[in-house]
Amino acid sequence: MTTEFKVIGTKPIRPDVIDKVMGRAIFAPDIMISGLLHGKILRSPYAHARILSIDTSAAEALPGVYAVITSKDLPQTPADNAELKYSRDNFLAGEKVLYEGHPIAAVAADSIHTAEDAIKLIRINYEILTPIMDMREAMKENSPKLHENIRLKSLGQDNGRPGNISLHVQHILGDPEKGFAEADEIVDREFTTTMVHQGYLEAQSSTVLWNPDGNLTVWTTTQGAFSVQSEISRILDISLSKIRVIPTEVGGAFGSKLRIYIEPVVVLLSKFANRPVKITMTQSEVLKATGPTPGTIMRVKMGAKRNGKITSATAELYFEAGAFPGSTAGGSPRLIFTEYDIPNGQVDAFEVLVNKTHVGAYRAPGDVQVTYSMEQVVDELAQKVNMDPIDFRLINVAHEGSISISGTIHKKIGAQQVLEAVKNHPHYKSPLKEANMGRGVAFGYWPNNGRDSSCIINVNSDGSVTLVTGSVDLSGTRLTIAMQAAEVLGISVDQVKSSVGDTSSIGYTGSSGGSRTTFATGLAAIQAAKDVINQMSIRAASLLNVPVSEITFERGFFTTSTSSSAKLSFSELAGKLNQTGGPITGKGNVSPSSWGAGFACHIADVEVDPETGKVSILRYTAIQDVGKAVHPTLVEGQMQGAVVQGIGWALWEGLFYDTQGRMLNSNRLDYKIATFVDIPHIETELIEVPSPFHPFGVRGVAEPAFVPPTATIANAVADALGKRIYSLPMTPEKILRTMDVID
Amino acid sequence: MTTEFKVIGTKPIRPDVIDKVMGRAIFAPDIMISGLLHGKILRSPYAHARILSIDTSAAEALPGVYAVITSKDLPQTPADNAELKYSRDNFLAGEKVLYEGHPIAAVAADSIHTAEDAIKLIRINYEILTPIMDMREAMKENSPKLHENIRLKSLGQDNGRPGNISLHVQHILGDPEKGFAEADEIVDREFTTTMVHQGYLEAQSSTVLWNPDGNLTVWTTTQGAFSVQSEISRILDISLSKIRVIPTEVGGAFGSKLRIYIEPVVVLLSKFANRPVKITMTQSEVLKATGPTPGTIMRVKMGAKRNGKITSATAELYFEAGAFPGSTAGGSPRLIFTEYDIPNGQVDAFEVLVNKTHVGAYRAPGDVQVTYSMEQVVDELAQKVNMDPIDFRLINVAHEGSISISGTIHKKIGAQQVLEAVKNHPHYKSPLKEANMGRGVAFGYWPNNGRDSSCIINVNSDGSVTLVTGSVDLSGTRLTIAMQAAEVLGISVDQVKSSVGDTSSIGYTGSSGGSRTTFATGLAAIQAAKDVINQMSIRAASLLNVPVSEITFERGFFTTSTSSSAKLSFSELAGKLNQTGGPITGKGNVSPSSWGAGFACHIADVEVDPETGKVSILRYTAIQDVGKAVHPTLVEGQMQGAVVQGIGWALWEGLFYDTQGRMLNSNRLDYKIATFVDIPHIETELIEVPSPFHPFGVRGVAEPAFVPPTATIANAVADALGKRIYSLPMTPEKILRTMDVID
Repeated sequence: MTTEFKVIGTKPIRPDVIDKVMGRAIFAPDIMISGLLHGKILRSPYAHARILSIDTSAAEALPGVYAVITSKDLPQTPADNAELKYSRDNFLAGEKVLYEGHPIAAVAADSIHTAEDAIKLIRINYEILTPIMDMREAMKENSPKLHENIRLKSLGQDNGRPGNISLHVQHILGDPEKGFAEADEIVDREFTTTMVHQGYLEAQSSTVLWNPDGNLTVWTTTQGAFSVQSEISRILDISLSKIRVIPTEVGGAFGSKLRIYIEPVVVLLSKFANRPVKITMTQSEVLKATGPTPGTIMRVKMGAKRNGKITSATAELYFEAGAFPGSTAGGSPRLIFTEYDIPNGQVDAFEVLVNKTHVGAYRAPGDVQVTYSMEQVVDELAQKVNMDPIDFRLINVAHEGSISISGTIHKKIGAQQVLEAVKNHPHYKSPLKEANMGRGVAFGYWPNNGRDSSCIINVNSDGSVTLVTGSVDLSGTRLTIAMQAAEVLGISVDQVKSSVGDTSSIGYTGSSGGSRTTFATGLAAIQAAKDVINQMSIRAASLLNVPVSEITFERGFFTTSTSSSAKLSFSELAGKLNQTGGPITGKGNVSPSSWGAGFACHIADVEVDPETGKVSILRYTAIQDVGKAVHPTLVEGQMQGAVVQGIGWALWEGLFYDTQGRMLNSNRLDYKIATFVDIPHIETELIEVPSPFHPFGVRGVAEPAFVPPTATIANAVADALGKRIYSLPMTPEKILRTMDVID
Repeated sequence: MTTEFKVIGTKPIRPDVIDKVMGRAIFAPDIMISGLLHGKILRSPYAHARILSIDTSAAEALPGVYAVITSKDLPQTPADNAELKYSRDNFLAGEKVLYEGHPIAAVAADSIHTAEDAIKLIRINYEILTPIMDMREAMKENSPKLHENIRLKSLGQDNGRPGNISLHVQHILGDPEKGFAEADEIVDREFTTTMVHQGYLEAQSSTVLWNPDGNLTVWTTTQGAFSVQSEISRILDISLSKIRVIPTEVGGAFGSKLRIYIEPVVVLLSKFANRPVKITMTQSEVLKATGPTPGTIMRVKMGAKRNGKITSATAELYFEAGAFPGSTAGGSPRLIFTEYDIPNGQVDAFEVLVNKTHVGAYRAPGDVQVTYSMEQVVDELAQKVNMDPIDFRLINVAHEGSISISGTIHKKIGAQQVLEAVKNHPHYKSPLKEANMGRGVAFGYWPNNGRDSSCIINVNSDGSVTLVTGSVDLSGTRLTIAMQAAEVLGISVDQVKSSVGDTSSIGYTGSSGGSRTTFATGLAAIQAAKDVINQMSIRAASLLNVPVSEITFERGFFTTSTSSSAKLSFSELAGKLNQTGGPITGKGNVSPSSWGAGFACHIADVEVDPETGKVSILRYTAIQDVGKAVHPTLVEGQMQGAVVQGIGWALWEGLFYDTQGRMLNSNRLDYKIATFVDIPHIETELIEVPSPFHPFGVRGVAEPAFVPPTATIANAVADALGKRIYSLPMTPEKILRTMDVID
């Protein structure tokens, strides 16, 4: 199959690189409109307080101020719609502020300096309340409550009293206790992780032009223009048809830009100021008040027989929600243990409210945490039954037809192939045994995603085409989608001008996330390209004077079965559209119900400095089933980027707060992410087990690559230390403490 | 039929008005890109000269100058491609300059002032040649020749020697001489008109960003983005797929922006400067060096029997081409006499080169001139046979099946209905006979046009839709196209977000011109809307659990023939697309081969001041077959705007040159167009004879309205003076001379 491709599997240059390298790409802060005002948001200095009064009069009186808004400018929320109330309260706080950085009011002024001066003139009376910063504290019956109306509804456990647990979901398979009774060895451990930020460098920025006729245009940095459109519609009660969202280039997202933080505020400012308004968040605002991934407390218990077969697995997963309900906790039971074929198990996941910013999605959301915990227990269990960790995993690995504890039935997957590739990899076979060095492996699964995508292709008279999708390009998808169209059309990819539409110019397309874009929007592009070929075949039939049933399109030529000489190339025919009925638009709209899951296994060698606690990554190899790599370099880039982020999360990253709920490291110096000095060359090996749900076999690749790194490094550090650290990040301080160098 | 429409025939507000009224609409000069350079073109001060040498070294050395280009930077033109050579020479002169204002070189610099300084430093040695400013002079055998390679090819009259006549076309029907022999009365007159500018207020302006990978983006004011794309491709030998043209809002065009004047120059400047570059022409440059409508010399002879029947008609039409071949001369024989059913006739049209700027299209191009001449002869002939001018026209009016001298076979037309409406109009029946007052009528025909158009419609989840076409909106067509889609979709027009795409985002669409847009792009929108309904019917069938053949869509509801209760509204179903297979995109691509011609007849009452020669328009009525007025207010606006432009052309307008070929009125004070102080309220009456080639009966309206005014006013002035003026404009000076007040 592979050798038949002409475009898929090649490595052309991304069409956006020159713009980006030369500083010409248009990012959200670059949007300039005449008359533009600058907005600034007043944010709470307290993590938990009641707002007694707000006086904006002095701010309104400041020369150069065009609009001042507070939550009273939002639409009235029906009393029975708590979800909408939470959403609106997160844009502009209502009765209470629930985290440091919670927006309370916003100003539009003729300069950012005037806007900054103006928000200082807004007077607020607070009743300061005790902040709840810790999940164990939050779950205590007598703790202060963030919301009066949260009563745990899941599992029928509503005790009628308000609480800080906003969700409990449970999955059970077989008989977990019986499974543990059958086990020869059991490992039962508790892990904690902290909130971690996605680490994108481009802050949220939006510009809005509200027109007096009620139409509005939004330029913003987002993973999905249609999602911004529907969120503005929902928050501000505005019809979709009035809202045009134009997505700009994105300077990093990783899940954070699936949700919005400022757009409705900017819309209201533009409406009341009757001028275009821009807000660009500061890095401190980004770190304090966007949506990091939740911190967790996870208890994982697994049992296995001496022959290596896992008999039972249970997990209790506590996820921080931050200030409002809604998190990846609910989905996390579908992610843990799914790599393995385990006959008995139970997963309970809880979401707990704390006085921190409301959590969001971060690359393979929820999966990194649960895999971090599970894969360490798996390693310990392998040691207990005296097996090589890969052999142990191979005994238990999921196959087509395996059913997970949460009920996932696996389709055609490459899980086993990935583990076998690890076992055969020179890195895994190489010796490593100097003092303070250790090796770890970890295995990860991500379901990937489908969702709605739209694409149109228009044929130019010279045989080149234009292609538009609604998928924001986070990682080169303009190119990977164009490559799939080019493959079908039998033309070279530089004949495809590929661009990203906005909500007014292209059909509904779900956000770029869930590792869906090259897969699902690729399917839309393939459908659109086939539509082009079908329409062109009709034209070819009329020009060649044969029934359309006799036209075949192959390798760039329309040929007839009756005459070997009569043929038309794609570009020849493109030049004749005008005389055969007019232009041709091909369209593709898909909503795939099946897609291919991704599996990845990573190997890391680390060295721990016993004097400083510093962990150095000596060698790192990422092996992954990518289905079919449309553009191998970009796939490798996804795998390498995921490892870099995973190293940061494993060793340094986290949002740290004082007891009053004030963030201690809300700047880019104190919030340490991995940089080039921290990482080795990351080796990659692409396994291609084609997905049966895509004609070229494509699977999502971006998120599966992010599932193993933290667990991989944790296992490697445990190997190096001979002791395990049960929490992230594994800072030098924690390492020295584990090594008993410090207390 | 009419009463069945819910949207067609209503008068909603244009979606672009607020932007335009509030100064928010983005016109070409508004485009700002960081690093933008400013371009300036060096133009010839001579109307005819040979370029002996160009020295750009001093300009290149000026600090702040990034690029200097001349014709040597254009691609080499093959010797046998004279047409391409002419095109390229008009962007940057090669061996000769052929009119005052002919571009020779261009500069890009960090400010417009630096650019202006730089072009003054370019040294050119000229050999000054005799300019040919007059067609009679140009046609003389021994006159200097503009081009050495022009040898008249038409009609086999090539005498082997170069000349200044670049085209001769001829149409003959029946036996013209026999026809004149049968006539009782013959009128034979000669008319002259001068070059006239379209009078748009927005100067040409283009911004180009050339990327080092060879892709380029052009923001420009144009009637058709795809035409700019293909012209840049042709002039600069660049693949279409590399060129993205984004059309901006247009501040007046009227045919002038069908052609381009600066874009290839800006592309080269951006390429060589490696920065974005903008050129905005000055009003003086616009008047000297864009494409006005040709001046003419027209000899028209018509004969009629005493009963009013026209027996023969002949015309010799000389059109100025300006400096290069190519004009509306070739098409003019298809326009003259076509209102009438005349058994015998001959039309000879010639195109003559003179040292003026190369002519272009101006609203109903060529038709205004020929109708100006013909309709005066018709009036004189009616007088000679003692008939009311409308009765005389009614006797001869064309009907379905009539064949014109040039071979046009009329389809279903409203010519007779228009003349009858004039006859019955209170204006026509009203008395008018004070001294120095006169009334005139004139009848006009315009074929309208079809050509390629593309449209896509995407359905939002709340039942609103987005609609994109490639038609630049000159006159409210975003709305009139949206109205047609709304009619088909059964939704209100404010549920349709209508926008104009660019060459990378929508299918090929011909330029907005020829009064085609509401008709042809409307057809594309209707096709796209029907495609949406067809696809939604399939979804409705699956939801209502019936075969799709049983689904009917009517008045906004999908219903089944089997159950009267089972139905889904458009918006209900729109909300369920996600769960029934994903988004829906409807597409329309059309290339109509037939469309409906337009006829208009105007009535003007004028008063001539015998002391100053000033002509005042007392009353003006425009009556026109519009097929079906999609938006009556916009149709009336087209008719009224056309009359205003016609008044200017009739009374004041013209490009005037001295004997050296220097333009005498190249500024907006000396080039007098009609303004609000010059015009009365213009009454309109819309006749609706549906075109059989459009489901709603739509015909083009913008150009038919512009055909009668100059002849109408000429006939009215002749009526007031009792004497006829045979040339345009009918300035006070000419009027006083005709009245023998001055010599």
